[in-house]
Amino acid sequence: MARTGRRPGQTETREDILAAARNQFGERGYDGATIRGIAAEAGVNPALVHHFFGSKEQVFAAALDLPIDPAAVLAVVLDGPRDSVGERILRLFISLWREPATRTPFLALVRSVSTNAQAAAMMRQFIERVMLARVADALGVPKLRLTALISHVMGIAMMRYIVGVEPIASAGEDELVALVAPVLQQYID
Amino acid sequence: MARTGRRPGQTETREDILAAARNQFGERGYDGATIRGIAAEAGVNPALVHHFFGSKEQVFAAALDLPIDPAAVLAVVLDGPRDSVGERILRLFISLWREPATRTPFLALVRSVSTNAQAAAMMRQFIERVMLARVADALGVPKLRLTALISHVMGIAMMRYIVGVEPIASAGEDELVALVAPVLQQYID
Repeated sequence: MARTGRRPGQTETREDILAAARNQFGERGYDGATIRGIAAEAGVNPALVHHFFGSKEQVFAAALDLPIDPAAVLAVVLDGPRDSVGERILRLFISLWREPATRTPFLALVRSVSTNAQAAAMMRQFIERVMLARVADALGVPKLRLTALISHVMGIAMMRYIVGVEPIASAGEDELVALVAPVLQQYID
Repeated sequence: MARTGRRPGQTETREDILAAARNQFGERGYDGATIRGIAAEAGVNPALVHHFFGSKEQVFAAALDLPIDPAAVLAVVLDGPRDSVGERILRLFISLWREPATRTPFLALVRSVSTNAQAAAMMRQFIERVMLARVADALGVPKLRLTALISHVMGIAMMRYIVGVEPIASAGEDELVALVAPVLQQYID
């Protein structure tokens, strides 16, 4: 999670940096945008961007209003036995969608991605560049298989938490994991 | 697909019926709403509702702006060997999302479901009452499994057609079916 400012003026500076980041990532893409360019557009020192947000991928997650730290998510996915990757990804998604503090920004993201081409492009680059490439390298799994796996987890969020279709909406977490995790795991094996 | 009027006044009558249907389904739910009640609210004869839209489930699909005839979708899913249900559902979804004429209203539906609680409630009832119950009965598959299957197909529409993440966005249809259909089929078997 990004830090919030305490002194007067910090909130404005933080918002200026995020607005500049959305412009730079939107115009140049994830690979083309730089911390230096974002700092220049916001009229601040690049060190301040690092101070507020951390790495480039953390600036990107904050600009997308993603309520997660990409490095922490990758650690959950990659730290553990290979034969339970599917279960770890599913339990992580369920825990993020279950809590209102993370569900609300995820829901806002689904809305903006389905209504706004720039938001969709940023989300696409976030998944491709920040998450997918690293998981594919670390596990040696083809990216098409990983995108199919992510599709399934995203669809469960839609059906369970957004549309609320029964019985998947009120199935217990362990019952859902017992049914779906082995299916996800097939994309890894 | 619903028929469009040719004589003056038909378009307005059709829209009045749809507005009444959205109110009646929204307030009373799918089971509680009736063609008679919709006709009364729209100030027309019930026979005219049937004439324009057909059955109650077809009025419901039109009120949701669903670009499909539920009976035709059910026929595609249920008419054929049980061991290729997963493939038939996936190919049907891909064909509906591939064509702009059906993709555009589906995209509008994703937007309204993620921004509007009444649209989400109608979509939920449509899936539960019109589609899920009949497929579960016909195939003898538990509903939790079918909702997991639908989740996966919905998520593929999100990743491939809305967010556009590579390589799933430009994978060939046959390559995608070869990878995903056996996974979907596991929920049926």
